[in-house]
Amino acid sequence: MRIGVDAMGGDFAPAEPVKGAIAAKDFLGDDDRIVLIGDEPIIRKYLEDFPGWEDFIEIVHASEIIGMAEPPVEALRQKPDSSIAKMASLAAKGQLDAILSAGNTGACVAAAQMRLRRLPGVHRPGIAIVIPTFSGPVVMCDVGANINCRAIHLYQYGLMAAEYSKCICNIAEPRVALLNIGTEDEKGNTLVKEARELFRQDPQVKFVGNVEGCDIFRNLCDVIITDGFVGNVALKLIEGLSEGLIKSIMLEQSKLKPELVEQFKQAVSATREKYDFNEYGGAPLLGVNGICIICHGASHARAMTNAIRVALDFSKTRINERITQRLASSYNTGRSESKTKLESKGVS
Amino acid sequence: MRIGVDAMGGDFAPAEPVKGAIAAKDFLGDDDRIVLIGDEPIIRKYLEDFPGWEDFIEIVHASEIIGMAEPPVEALRQKPDSSIAKMASLAAKGQLDAILSAGNTGACVAAAQMRLRRLPGVHRPGIAIVIPTFSGPVVMCDVGANINCRAIHLYQYGLMAAEYSKCICNIAEPRVALLNIGTEDEKGNTLVKEARELFRQDPQVKFVGNVEGCDIFRNLCDVIITDGFVGNVALKLIEGLSEGLIKSIMLEQSKLKPELVEQFKQAVSATREKYDFNEYGGAPLLGVNGICIICHGASHARAMTNAIRVALDFSKTRINERITQRLASSYNTGRSESKTKLESKGVS
Repeated sequence: MRIGVDAMGGDFAPAEPVKGAIAAKDFLGDDDRIVLIGDEPIIRKYLEDFPGWEDFIEIVHASEIIGMAEPPVEALRQKPDSSIAKMASLAAKGQLDAILSAGNTGACVAAAQMRLRRLPGVHRPGIAIVIPTFSGPVVMCDVGANINCRAIHLYQYGLMAAEYSKCICNIAEPRVALLNIGTEDEKGNTLVKEARELFRQDPQVKFVGNVEGCDIFRNLCDVIITDGFVGNVALKLIEGLSEGLIKSIMLEQSKLKPELVEQFKQAVSATREKYDFNEYGGAPLLGVNGICIICHGASHARAMTNAIRVALDFSKTRINERITQRLASSYNTGRSESKTKLESKGVS
Repeated sequence: MRIGVDAMGGDFAPAEPVKGAIAAKDFLGDDDRIVLIGDEPIIRKYLEDFPGWEDFIEIVHASEIIGMAEPPVEALRQKPDSSIAKMASLAAKGQLDAILSAGNTGACVAAAQMRLRRLPGVHRPGIAIVIPTFSGPVVMCDVGANINCRAIHLYQYGLMAAEYSKCICNIAEPRVALLNIGTEDEKGNTLVKEARELFRQDPQVKFVGNVEGCDIFRNLCDVIITDGFVGNVALKLIEGLSEGLIKSIMLEQSKLKPELVEQFKQAVSATREKYDFNEYGGAPLLGVNGICIICHGASHARAMTNAIRVALDFSKTRINERITQRLASSYNTGRSESKTKLESKGVS
């Protein structure tokens, strides 16, 4: 398997993506290779410290970089030789089996959609993130690929994220829930209500209904579905609050018993490790015809290494085949506008 | 001042609302009275334990209760003698100066809107909650009154919540931000983009632009504006995550050094007190022509007592007058559809 890594993407590029690629050696198979995409002379400089890198790493030069704040589609047009654009086009040509980036998320999503295209039957790809909770991992989808969701998108996110939960979190029959402002049927906006009906009509989904923000952490569901706006706000809120709360507890602890701070730090780091997004590495863009892993902009080497592992697992467990089969057998996708559209394009 | 308290609302009614009312005695003025609304015989039974309650508490009998899961508007129609409906109608008649409830939020919001009406110029009332953060209190509005927001609603939430922040959090010039999925201008949905333009056109608002979910806890703003769907999900997420994270740290701590658990508990409770919604009591429904305080369904006596304090402060600082003045002098409200609509109703 050939895994493309955007060496120029993220707050700590190229140092951390390069280090992350090096550390992946431990679990790469004999046929696996990592392809670092970006400024070749600079990448070589960072690789110098790791003799033997040539055994499993290749470099593909890309002369441009898309910045974190650039408007995605425009940037892709104006910078065809950017690491993200080049990586996606190599994947489209079959020269890469997976791509991953900690760079501009919007550009990465757009490039993957344009170059890899969608899996048959999929309306909109969605980013699925694993949230580590007290009672186990919960997959949330979408966390930012699609902020103009329709009910069929949410429904398909449910099917795709459930397959992901089965393969990656080893949950045999994931409980799928819709993120809402109350558990009762009459609560919520039209989008949530329409999506709920689609889920209810599908006996193959273990749909547990609406959940509220607090329920993510209360072992009520394994998969939580929401539109990309709400999901993105929620994801970043989790990040900011965890950070703030831990900081606050540390301060109180140091006030009370300064000599216990060290002990306490151990408990916090143990917790932090469990809750740390770096541990889960990257979030796949579910629904594209290929493997695209989106990493946090602040990813360190460990996160990049774990993202490479996610790409391997994604391939090994054949998630895309499972998603395609699942969507094909879905009552709702079958009868919806989805089929009509696909038929009109001659895809079905 | 006569403060109506829904004695039947919330998970722990009537015990906690009654106890909360009793504890409010400490800060009530000579002219302040609390009016408990609900099942009189039951309320009397709970009051028995507190001799002297007659000095500052009255009871108004209401024979019905609106359950937490009932559809608000329907429930209000079917139960005109429910504690919430009766309380709102007493306020409309001028027999109560403030109303507060830990019961069905939707019913409470609907009753207040129908009976108290809106302040001049206000399109939609919004619930404003104070989020205690590491670096100080942040007011978030709306957290659930209005899930079908338009840009003018968000803009007005900004003006109203800023007045609230000035009066209640003592912040001279609150920094107002829009909750979004990125800080850059091109990020976000149409609603956020349109609201941003309204804020930018108003030189009287200290508008600091877009913030992300994580920024709530990073001292970037004092007021954070969002629609009721996103705000409600965010609020409940904060609640669930705080609970889960503290539980998780406690568990790790007990694994490492069981003998230190007690020490650690002190640090956690000190933090919990700061982050506890009970400390802030209730959330006002900003924009209604009166005082309506919404309490958390799981409110204990302390939260109810604090909500009564919020009602008093709300009145003392004349927030409604300030909001009315602020909206009248607002460039955007003045020229918008708001004025047109109000004029056509003969209100302006």
